[in-house]
Amino acid sequence: MSDFNLEKLEKIVTERASVTDGSSYTATLVSCGVEKCAQKLGEEAVETAIAAAVGDKCGLTKEAADLLYHLLVLLQATEVRLEDVMTELDRRTGQSGLAEKAARAESSTKSK
Amino acid sequence: MSDFNLEKLEKIVTERASVTDGSSYTATLVSCGVEKCAQKLGEEAVETAIAAAVGDKCGLTKEAADLLYHLLVLLQATEVRLEDVMTELDRRTGQSGLAEKAARAESSTKSK
Amino acid sequence: MSDFNLEKLEKIVTERASVTDGSSYTATLVSCGVEKCAQKLGEEAVETAIAAAVGDKCGLTKEAADLLYHLLVLLQATEVRLEDVMTELDRRTGQSGLAEKAARAESSTKSK
Amino acid sequence: MSDFNLEKLEKIVTERASVTDGSSYTATLVSCGVEKCAQKLGEEAVETAIAAAVGDKCGLTKEAADLLYHLLVLLQATEVRLEDVMTELDRRTGQSGLAEKAARAESSTKSK
Repeated sequence: MSDFNLEKLEKIVTERASVTDGSSYTATLVSCGVEKCAQKLGEEAVETAIAAAVGDKCGLTKEAADLLYHLLVLLQATEVRLEDVMTELDRRTGQSGLAEKAARAESSTKSK
Repeated sequence: MSDFNLEKLEKIVTERASVTDGSSYTATLVSCGVEKCAQKLGEEAVETAIAAAVGDKCGLTKEAADLLYHLLVLLQATEVRLEDVMTELDRRTGQSGLAEKAARAESSTKSK
Repeated sequence: MSDFNLEKLEKIVTERASVTDGSSYTATLVSCGVEKCAQKLGEEAVETAIAAAVGDKCGLTKEAADLLYHLLVLLQATEVRLEDVMTELDRRTGQSGLAEKAARAESSTKSK
Repeated sequence: MSDFNLEKLEKIVTERASVTDGSSYTATLVSCGVEKCAQKLGEEAVETAIAAAVGDKCGLTKEAADLLYHLLVLLQATEVRLEDVMTELDRRTGQSGLAEKAARAESSTKSK
């Protein structure tokens, strides 16, 4: 089982974006500017949506990976931190770190 | 700092998708089928791309959160596991858990 | 057979966009600004792409109609004329009015 | 002023799609199948949406031309006729050929 996660991906994208010898796809894409990165994100999302709609689970897995990669590239290009996106998700799903810890504590008390 | 991550989000989406009393947006969306979930993903991606392109960092943070949420909903609807997507990302970025550890070990040896 | 075309659609969209009593969907959309109109275009395109990919010809016909409608709304919101888009298409397809007529004349000469 | 229109574009796309010597982009795209054509449509729509959102009118004109071209390619690949899309648009905009003629007749009577 892979313990890969978006935080690791963000680090990899940041590292690659700083490669200046022209060997990095990521650095090239970021250097093309935000509009190009935004186009790529949209493109990958359409491919993800189509793979899902036609029931191609293998294709969906690959396209979803591409989509996540290009989302991180877009965040890199716009200097938005993944952490801020995660905080927003946390806030929306109504599961703040504290609330969750409290819930877990309560649950562990109950289970005693 | 939030320690929220996609793995937690996947659990929340799975929980919500199983709500049957009609109170859950997620459950309603999943029950509409894969095509509808795929449409929503595409819609959120376009909004993310536009927010980035116009330089709206606050909007981008929110839209990226929406995009990730709807990607997890789409994975739920198609019964694709986030873990498989992460494994694919891990494979592509060429940084398997073992390789990374080895690289780190080597690097710490070198730095001595 | 319908003799409806994009030029007629452009006129209808322009008329509707100027309705100020809140009764027109088109006017409301245009008044929301270019970003909103651009989002709608993207949304309709994703729906068109998905309908095509799953082989839903009836759905595709409807979504393509929606897509064309929202493209005209976007042109309206940005004050780009359909005529300019058509001129661009004409130029690209390498079939200017004159070239086509010449080609046709030549072809009819040859066929004699 | 160009008198180019979608009907002419449809004919050009149909002609090009039947080119079998590998020289036609259109034929190659159609031969890749509906999914690929649907992806391209989505891609062009995202580029159109972004060009509009950032206020690039020149870019929007070009991307809208690309979008229309790839919509016609998608209709070709799925064997949906432009005429059916136009009939749908006509029906939706509530301006059937007959109704419009009647409206025009009425309007010319009123204007006397």
